[in-house]
Amino acid sequence: MSSTPAPWSQEEFEAKLRGRSTSYHIHHPFHVMMAAGTLTRAQLQGWVANRFYYQISIPIKDAAILSNCDDREIRREWIQRILDHDGYHIGGIDDPGGIEAWIRLGEAVGLSRDDVTSLRYLAPAARFAVDAYVNFARRQPWQEAVASSLTELFAPHIHQQRIDTWPTQYPWVDAAGLHYFKQRLTQARRDVEHGLRFTLDYFSQTRALQERALEILQFKLDVLWALADAIMLSQCEIEIKGPKAKVAP
Amino acid sequence: MSSTPAPWSQEEFEAKLRGRSTSYHIHHPFHVMMAAGTLTRAQLQGWVANRFYYQISIPIKDAAILSNCDDREIRREWIQRILDHDGYHIGGIDDPGGIEAWIRLGEAVGLSRDDVTSLRYLAPAARFAVDAYVNFARRQPWQEAVASSLTELFAPHIHQQRIDTWPTQYPWVDAAGLHYFKQRLTQARRDVEHGLRFTLDYFSQTRALQERALEILQFKLDVLWALADAIMLSQCEIEIKGPKAKVAP
Repeated sequence: MSSTPAPWSQEEFEAKLRGRSTSYHIHHPFHVMMAAGTLTRAQLQGWVANRFYYQISIPIKDAAILSNCDDREIRREWIQRILDHDGYHIGGIDDPGGIEAWIRLGEAVGLSRDDVTSLRYLAPAARFAVDAYVNFARRQPWQEAVASSLTELFAPHIHQQRIDTWPTQYPWVDAAGLHYFKQRLTQARRDVEHGLRFTLDYFSQTRALQERALEILQFKLDVLWALADAIMLSQCEIEIKGPKAKVAP
Repeated sequence: MSSTPAPWSQEEFEAKLRGRSTSYHIHHPFHVMMAAGTLTRAQLQGWVANRFYYQISIPIKDAAILSNCDDREIRREWIQRILDHDGYHIGGIDDPGGIEAWIRLGEAVGLSRDDVTSLRYLAPAARFAVDAYVNFARRQPWQEAVASSLTELFAPHIHQQRIDTWPTQYPWVDAAGLHYFKQRLTQARRDVEHGLRFTLDYFSQTRALQERALEILQFKLDVLWALADAIMLSQCEIEIKGPKAKVAP
């Protein structure tokens, strides 16, 4: 008898993936402040300006996945993500795309287009966190990079929260700027359906693969958390209160 | 008449490079605490455990430089750095190398070898900062990667500080553990002489190149600062005091 544990059922595996929502950056102190309406105008601007680097890195990350993927069917689905973010002009449709929508969010919070696109407010550690995600997609097998996109499971909630709370908590933000979040509500749901279906199938071949998928999802959650840390440290005065509860032995 | 500014003299350029010491991580709150002797045993252990990831990444970074470098003379000099960190057994000499010395530093602060080498205490953002340095060396021309090593200009000071202060401020640390810092005092001085000579020559071809070298040095200073931020957040309880003095416009 093999001592290798049997794979979890797909339902059980999916529940374990969804269970990682506890590490989603919606729980990060900076995002808690954002949802509570206690960020200053400059802090919200700082978040939009820093997060822009994530936005412009997404299509580069997705292109890395395409460049590693020898499955045409997957490429035909996955390319939609690049089109969504970069925008496109195909067959009479002219979509300015998610990056342009984010620049307009920048304008809605009072930044100029150049403030956003110049990256002049980008904190180095924010860049390092985002680049970790791009480099993961460049260097790991495309199946792993697909699994790393599954933080989208948790994204509709945070987008909806912003749509619901900003108009009352940050009434000075031009409401047109919320277009990005509204658009992503639909797109993220569609994307994650594809990514989740693939991950549940591919990684359910063995328990070890399922555990690897959880590790990959955790890596991506860590990227988003580290991005929030970097933004927090660049936007907030902090004070060291004392040592953390024992980390090292 | 060209509007391109003339290159700085090599003396002036070197002074500008050295002037960047104001952003060196010796000024980071966590390192200030370390020098003041106020870190707890667990915090010092946390620093050693996290910083180990930097130590094991250095030879990978240097191998990336070799792999991009078509100049045999440079490779013959640069390979010494890999030998220093990985250790070697050549011509009857048996040098365990800097990584092994760092593991012994880990033991000297009360960690087990496995605590250090397993990376179980590594903060994700510490990994992202260090990986940014490795990826810079992988993707940029080797001449730029050489310039990025120039934070070694500032390293002897911080090593000497540890050698001087630890025996009284952290008397529980086994003194044999300080061997790494003592060894690096000599090695870093030799390495930086080579890197600095090359940078002053190569980047003095134009003012634009000199400015690029300063930008590269700043990138590497940002890597070390972000590493210290990651360690601080993983080892310290912090409190958000309020917004930073205006960052965004």
